[in-house]
Amino acid sequence: MARRFKLLIEYDGRPFAGWQIQANAPSIQAALTKAIHAFTGEQVIVHGAGRTDAGVHANGQVAHVDIEKAISPQRFLGAINHHLKPHPISVLSAEIVGDDFHARFSARRRSYRYEIINRPSRLSFAEGLAWHVSRPLDADAMQEGANHLLGQHDFTTFRHSACQARSPIRTLDLLRVERLDDRLHIHVSALSFLHHQVRSMVGSLELVGAGKWPPIMMKEILEAKDRCALALTPRPSGFISPASIIRVLTLDNV
Amino acid sequence: MARRFKLLIEYDGRPFAGWQIQANAPSIQAALTKAIHAFTGEQVIVHGAGRTDAGVHANGQVAHVDIEKAISPQRFLGAINHHLKPHPISVLSAEIVGDDFHARFSARRRSYRYEIINRPSRLSFAEGLAWHVSRPLDADAMQEGANHLLGQHDFTTFRHSACQARSPIRTLDLLRVERLDDRLHIHVSALSFLHHQVRSMVGSLELVGAGKWPPIMMKEILEAKDRCALALTPRPSGFISPASIIRVLTLDNV
Repeated sequence: MARRFKLLIEYDGRPFAGWQIQANAPSIQAALTKAIHAFTGEQVIVHGAGRTDAGVHANGQVAHVDIEKAISPQRFLGAINHHLKPHPISVLSAEIVGDDFHARFSARRRSYRYEIINRPSRLSFAEGLAWHVSRPLDADAMQEGANHLLGQHDFTTFRHSACQARSPIRTLDLLRVERLDDRLHIHVSALSFLHHQVRSMVGSLELVGAGKWPPIMMKEILEAKDRCALALTPRPSGFISPASIIRVLTLDNV
Repeated sequence: MARRFKLLIEYDGRPFAGWQIQANAPSIQAALTKAIHAFTGEQVIVHGAGRTDAGVHANGQVAHVDIEKAISPQRFLGAINHHLKPHPISVLSAEIVGDDFHARFSARRRSYRYEIINRPSRLSFAEGLAWHVSRPLDADAMQEGANHLLGQHDFTTFRHSACQARSPIRTLDLLRVERLDDRLHIHVSALSFLHHQVRSMVGSLELVGAGKWPPIMMKEILEAKDRCALALTPRPSGFISPASIIRVLTLDNV
């Protein structure tokens, strides 16, 4: 009888087109599937708690997979990490859970940390891991703007046109802007998010931080319930690209 | 008349053979020299406070260079960072200093942070940026061992056979082992170091942390004044390689 393994996974998303298996692009899910096949001979489906986009990284992506082969969690962990080489993916822990556990459906909260490095000079280590913003950002103003988004709202403004969710209503539990020297960490948590919601919120908050928008503007564009409200002022040129750089995904499950 | 610029430089050492210009290998010094030539037309020598080895990274390497072209520090900073692309090198600051300033000879202290990630699972983000040690390390025992090395000693034991320094006497101002979850940071400061001194000390401390050596062994091998004392017990197989991974170099100058 197959046993269900719960995995905690760390990955550098830079070389991947995202979490989900795609026909002609490398994905984290495909790398995990292939590694498991190498030591079990089984064709498995690895279910992730969240499907991260290209350029999104994880410190603690939760996933589960059903394995027929009799193998201890400790040996599973050693084997999967061995066969994941040389991909920048590391399985941090593996444990056996009951069949009622589901990485996606059991998730109670999804947490992201978006990183901005706010300094004049270009990035070296953090290239592709953080958004470089050279103009000074006021973290307090950003927090004031962020507070308008907390709670349950219609987040249509911050939703990608391709978003397939049935409802645009989401409940934002946390949106905290933290400055650590020249870094800004934007912590965000919710049960679930709309497509591109996090990056759209962060892109707007950057305008607030730069003084281009007053903090109250966050409330106004939210209430506009219109994706076009995001474009009321000129976008920073890097808007699309940096918005894909979400440093860390952590998923809290039951 | 040439003016002297003091630079503070951050770099990811992974793609380089080290700081110093070499005939057939990429170096940080060569990349800086080429970038400066691109906007000044001048053939300069960039003097670093320390010559980092291959695989050593910097958060704040101090350097100086003499420039004939009349250019403000602000424009210098923008131009050098522009021309450093796509190398993972960023000049964090540039300021004009007097001719009596010399990056190497004015340095009062050189500080390194050696990073160990201490967990069973392999690295993803930190591959090449930290030493992965899977066996549990006791940071308190390592600190106890480290304390035996503080102060002025003959560091022959920790000196590479190719070291060209005239004297093996050095004064270690700081050797602090700090645990942050699954990371160990080993902070080390001195006016100067012998060739491979830092990595040799860290490699020995790892044996203490793993319980292979009692802390007092650090005192014994120091007093042996013999490089062979480092090999009294089996080396971890990764000794040479991880020893080249020193995460951060900071140089305090006058």
